[in-house]
Amino acid sequence: MTTTPLQPTARTSLRRSKERAATERQELYDVLLDGMFCHLGVVLDGDPLVLPTAYGVDLDRGPDGELYLHGSVAARSVVAAPQQTVCVTVTHTDGLVLARSAFHHSVNYRSAVIFGVPRLITDPDEKLHALNRIVDHLVPGRSAAVRSASRKELAKTSVLALSLTEASVKTRSGPANDDEEDLDLPYWTGVIPLQVVAGVPENNPDCDLMVPAHVRSRANVLGAPS
Amino acid sequence: MTTTPLQPTARTSLRRSKERAATERQELYDVLLDGMFCHLGVVLDGDPLVLPTAYGVDLDRGPDGELYLHGSVAARSVVAAPQQTVCVTVTHTDGLVLARSAFHHSVNYRSAVIFGVPRLITDPDEKLHALNRIVDHLVPGRSAAVRSASRKELAKTSVLALSLTEASVKTRSGPANDDEEDLDLPYWTGVIPLQVVAGVPENNPDCDLMVPAHVRSRANVLGAPS
Repeated sequence: MTTTPLQPTARTSLRRSKERAATERQELYDVLLDGMFCHLGVVLDGDPLVLPTAYGVDLDRGPDGELYLHGSVAARSVVAAPQQTVCVTVTHTDGLVLARSAFHHSVNYRSAVIFGVPRLITDPDEKLHALNRIVDHLVPGRSAAVRSASRKELAKTSVLALSLTEASVKTRSGPANDDEEDLDLPYWTGVIPLQVVAGVPENNPDCDLMVPAHVRSRANVLGAPS
Repeated sequence: MTTTPLQPTARTSLRRSKERAATERQELYDVLLDGMFCHLGVVLDGDPLVLPTAYGVDLDRGPDGELYLHGSVAARSVVAAPQQTVCVTVTHTDGLVLARSAFHHSVNYRSAVIFGVPRLITDPDEKLHALNRIVDHLVPGRSAAVRSASRKELAKTSVLALSLTEASVKTRSGPANDDEEDLDLPYWTGVIPLQVVAGVPENNPDCDLMVPAHVRSRANVLGAPS
């Protein structure tokens, strides 16, 4: 895995709070590998449309790695995407930051914003590879423990690859930063940590198999609040 | 609180998976009240920009209630927003849905998508009201336990109101839905529940006050995995 710097463009350069900008490509990869869902932004009829969706990544493809998205071939957002620049945003919210002043309330977070014109994947093998990456991103090892997509199912699914070349990462962590003159105010200040956790896997009503190791493992990794 | 139906427009009508569309305005309010953060989509120089941000709501203002957003007066997204239609998306991811077939993997979720041209709030009292709604949305009761925004701080902050008139809500819940012919495949199927939980509130290093009731209460509500 490379540890080259991110190369900021006009739209990925932070204009404010520059100290929150990450500069290493590895920080982008960390945000993506740690996330489960993204928000995809496209422009339809001149207006923005933002939809949540799953994603996968392959950091060894293309010059800077690729992110994969999928959807029904009938989905407006997926149909529109390969003709235009899209924006994919992955956000982790790590804590509510409560200051003594309303103004300095904040959020601890890590977010990645990626811009690019996605490539519609047409090769069936590459399509399958990308779809496996998406399912394995959510539950590592899952793609080897399911019936793989049929040719008919592949034909119903659009898969997009977005290069990770143009991206920015922004993070905030740590305590609240009140103004000097507010430090003696009699108001509590601190952080409420936030985390996404998994519960105990629930069998489908029609499934009496034991929960397999890859599912237990995924739930365990996500399941223990740290 | 009203329980009128949502009035779908062309861009809020679901074209696929229509059974996932919520039809009651109350379902929109529930998704918003239960969420903490949204993703704001705007169009800048023809391209979409999607950024995570906090929000607040007041369901008693305007014909259908309003959503509030804020940001630095220097933020590109906030400056651009009142001149254009924006898209605000709030997403809860409730579970990973693992089917026997790769194709039928899914996510249990509740998401709201709101479109509209935001109104820039200029009246200082209304601005303060909206900012209090944002901070109280994250931690109920917080706005009464902090130093309120000064005139100077208000001048540095842009606050937007977005009517909740044009919106759609989509949800998925329950087990995986495999095809009939896959039901006997020897693959585990079920759901890994997901939830955002809070940890124990952490005092700022320079604060030795007891954690107040409103903070404990917020952490408790979010803190116990259900």
